[in-house]
Amino acid sequence: MSGDTRARIVDATLETLKTKGFAGTSTRAIATAGGFNPALIFYYFGTLNELLLAALEHSSSERLDRYRDALDEAGSLDQLASLLGRIYREDVESGHIRVVSELVAGSVAVPALGPRVIELMEPWLELAEAAIERALAGSPVLELATPRRLAYAAVTFYLGANLVSHLAPDQEDLAGLLDDAARLAPLIDAALRG
Amino acid sequence: MSGDTRARIVDATLETLKTKGFAGTSTRAIATAGGFNPALIFYYFGTLNELLLAALEHSSSERLDRYRDALDEAGSLDQLASLLGRIYREDVESGHIRVVSELVAGSVAVPALGPRVIELMEPWLELAEAAIERALAGSPVLELATPRRLAYAAVTFYLGANLVSHLAPDQEDLAGLLDDAARLAPLIDAALRG
Repeated sequence: MSGDTRARIVDATLETLKTKGFAGTSTRAIATAGGFNPALIFYYFGTLNELLLAALEHSSSERLDRYRDALDEAGSLDQLASLLGRIYREDVESGHIRVVSELVAGSVAVPALGPRVIELMEPWLELAEAAIERALAGSPVLELATPRRLAYAAVTFYLGANLVSHLAPDQEDLAGLLDDAARLAPLIDAALRG
Repeated sequence: MSGDTRARIVDATLETLKTKGFAGTSTRAIATAGGFNPALIFYYFGTLNELLLAALEHSSSERLDRYRDALDEAGSLDQLASLLGRIYREDVESGHIRVVSELVAGSVAVPALGPRVIELMEPWLELAEAAIERALAGSPVLELATPRRLAYAAVTFYLGANLVSHLAPDQEDLAGLLDDAARLAPLIDAALRG
């Protein structure tokens, strides 16, 4: 029963972030969206910040599980690029892109949140690192840059893309970029393997 | 005289964004920082949003002028990569990175600002586009992706890097990434030229 209540609060928080943004996600707005007493938020999560982090972690974990299997199967850069495209489109449709943008942007104004939001990038970094290590096995690239840093570049780019697509949803360049990346990947893949 | 006042207001706004962040940059805080009457802000800029955009544009133009010549001389991917590293370090030191992060993050919560902040990316996109076109002249990459979209990727990445370094200033991975990029560029450059 208490597990159900926690889950209901987290769901209401994600819903509120998607519809009202970071600035509109007060404990009162979350409680109204979920139809429960605001006091439950403090009982289960202590503070609003902790609840926001729990919601981001929940949304993130769900997606990690879904994509881990797919990433494990990607053996080349072009498979990775198509997968990145799929993740991006699914994130737009599910509203996760809005949740991430709102929390990343919102945490710029809340010093206590910033480093903890960045910590939640960690499992994605590890996933990307493993995928890059496999995709570039034997390539001279790995003598010059670590998979960790290349993973960092990918996740950083993804974060920038999240924000741009959130700020200017009609940008055609970003969607087009994914198509370009998928076309370019086999060329770069072949070139890097020598 | 009025040009001086406008410039003073813009300087006070940039200073306030660096020290107090987006949330703390009220007309009152700007006026206090610059030692002038808050009414001057409305007289010269109409609204706080217009002033914020003018300040971002001012900071951005100054840097564009400084980097345009350097970019014009960069003839290869590795020269571009070192230049990008220099721009990034100078932006950290001058506090411009903080101004961009605060305004990009802040504009997520202010729908009227978002698309106009993105518009201010345009001169950077054009600059990057021209540099990429020169650096990749004759490469098969340009048969698969337009310089415009590659420029978009670079600026998007830069925006993500701005935010990450702002949210987690002690990240070593980001600074290390620039070193990796400079080492990787000649390899990729050579590979892409076949």
